[in-house]
Amino acid sequence: MSKPYVIGMDMGGTNTVFGIVDARGHVIASDSIKTMKHSKFEDYVEDLHDAVIRLLKANDAEDKIKGIGIGAPNANYYTGEIVNAANLPWGDIVPLAESISKAFDGIPVGVTNDANAAALGEMTYGAAKGMKDFIMITLGTGVGSGVVVNGQVVYGHDGNAGELGHLIVKRTNGRVCGCGRTGCLEAYCSATGVARTAREFLEIRTDPSDLRNLQIEDITSKDVYDAAMSGDKLAKEIFDFTGKILGEAMADMVTFSSPQAFILFGGLTKSGDLLLKPLKEAFEKSLMPVFRGKIKILVSELKESDAAVLGASALGWEAKYHYQDTVKPADVPLVTEG
Amino acid sequence: MSKPYVIGMDMGGTNTVFGIVDARGHVIASDSIKTMKHSKFEDYVEDLHDAVIRLLKANDAEDKIKGIGIGAPNANYYTGEIVNAANLPWGDIVPLAESISKAFDGIPVGVTNDANAAALGEMTYGAAKGMKDFIMITLGTGVGSGVVVNGQVVYGHDGNAGELGHLIVKRTNGRVCGCGRTGCLEAYCSATGVARTAREFLEIRTDPSDLRNLQIEDITSKDVYDAAMSGDKLAKEIFDFTGKILGEAMADMVTFSSPQAFILFGGLTKSGDLLLKPLKEAFEKSLMPVFRGKIKILVSELKESDAAVLGASALGWEAKYHYQDTVKPADVPLVTEG
Repeated sequence: MSKPYVIGMDMGGTNTVFGIVDARGHVIASDSIKTMKHSKFEDYVEDLHDAVIRLLKANDAEDKIKGIGIGAPNANYYTGEIVNAANLPWGDIVPLAESISKAFDGIPVGVTNDANAAALGEMTYGAAKGMKDFIMITLGTGVGSGVVVNGQVVYGHDGNAGELGHLIVKRTNGRVCGCGRTGCLEAYCSATGVARTAREFLEIRTDPSDLRNLQIEDITSKDVYDAAMSGDKLAKEIFDFTGKILGEAMADMVTFSSPQAFILFGGLTKSGDLLLKPLKEAFEKSLMPVFRGKIKILVSELKESDAAVLGASALGWEAKYHYQDTVKPADVPLVTEG
Repeated sequence: MSKPYVIGMDMGGTNTVFGIVDARGHVIASDSIKTMKHSKFEDYVEDLHDAVIRLLKANDAEDKIKGIGIGAPNANYYTGEIVNAANLPWGDIVPLAESISKAFDGIPVGVTNDANAAALGEMTYGAAKGMKDFIMITLGTGVGSGVVVNGQVVYGHDGNAGELGHLIVKRTNGRVCGCGRTGCLEAYCSATGVARTAREFLEIRTDPSDLRNLQIEDITSKDVYDAAMSGDKLAKEIFDFTGKILGEAMADMVTFSSPQAFILFGGLTKSGDLLLKPLKEAFEKSLMPVFRGKIKILVSELKESDAAVLGASALGWEAKYHYQDTVKPADVPLVTEG
């Protein structure tokens, strides 16, 4: 009998959310544990395992899980490892797929980074349902991306494809980026980027703004949003600036894969037309003529809490990796590959 | 009995070269006709048909052709049409696949643009043999590209993917490009772009150069190459400038698909290290750290005359489109789909 559920896990720096998901994309039940409180990865895996088992027992689903899909920062689809994740405390290389599969007696596990997981979620259950060519852009603390071509997530030869937040949008005097270079899209169009723009604008310019009532170093993208919504001109211009850069960069992305649509996701999309209007204008204007008027820009319709779990869960259905104890194969009864 | 050959056709603005190709990538025989002398597309197709039939007869291959693959400027893989090709005289939309298949009694025909055909050729017979993720860059009069992901050419949702010659490399005061915008890679790193750089350098600067002995408006990339090879400093700097822009743009392309390699092809690659040295330096320096030292930059090893025909022929093996006369199906005996 084929198993009716998968588990989707969204591992963030603060929380790890997980849920039992059925084939139609319903989250049957979900729960979470704290990620950061575990200074040792082994303790984290043990806690996560116990919490998942509790959830499975409570929902009578212990023997019904086909696989586990995990979205995690810098997780590599091919190796199953987390590599150099800045906001996780467990060292440079974390054997994520291996450890989770082992903890769950060899169940198949698939991992990828959070933006790719989001793209899978949109394709399977969300705004990109039925699309074979689209680009997912996540606008959060950073700018992430998941590229789908011919119905497949593009992982590249080493699992590191889809780093469009690190396209260079400013070649000279660009802002320093977390990746060690300067001028990356992420340094301008993430939530953090919006806050940096606010600080730059306030320092360089002299026109009045409600934002001047705040401690300049504490300003967040939310502050800029609130000010813009109450009509603050400078705050609106910050969104114009952000949207223009993102729209121009997205027009460049089109020359690569000619997608049917972009799906935008993450905190910054809550700014709505403040961001989307200048973004769409710059996008259309910057496109090669052959692409104009043809490419949709959509905002994810998935609930933010569900989207990450759903996206990761999509990976669970086709997960291939499973831990095998080569010394005592008889101890690995739950292998359910295929 | 399965048919042992395909026909590959490379349609250029001046000549159309075609060849009979076997499954191992040997060009059994080839010939060409003039493209431009036909002001009517129907006449061109008729001439091409007659010339191909002559070649088939001469090689006893009339009943041995599985399909025809065609690389042509702006040819669309999905529609089989040539759309808005600037250097062809037959109007905005040319029904290429349909007309050729009809002329050859319904034989399956596959078409794509020349850069995608080159990518297929490299993957099937050339430097990218065995690679599943690479990017082909053609450096000729323009800059073309063919992107291969998971072993498949990326066509995008409408067949227009892979226009990386039109990535914007200069956002302000960029050069006018043939696509109607400004600042495109092609305006800098094509053979024409090199000549434009030469003219700009000679006008702006005052240092001596052999290039000053030439009529400034007639300077070609070949002139710049010759001067650089005889030690001309300014000519060398023109290649440094070109290589740096191309290397930086290629580093941006990597964030998209994390390719195993770039394959460079076309006239400008003959400049060798004059171009490749500054290109590779800028490329490595501009890459995100996670990609450094991992991505090959290769120059095509296929003979230029063969490469285009071979690339197009690769499309012939899997060509699906074939003309069917719905009024008189009995007149279409050569349908060999599958």
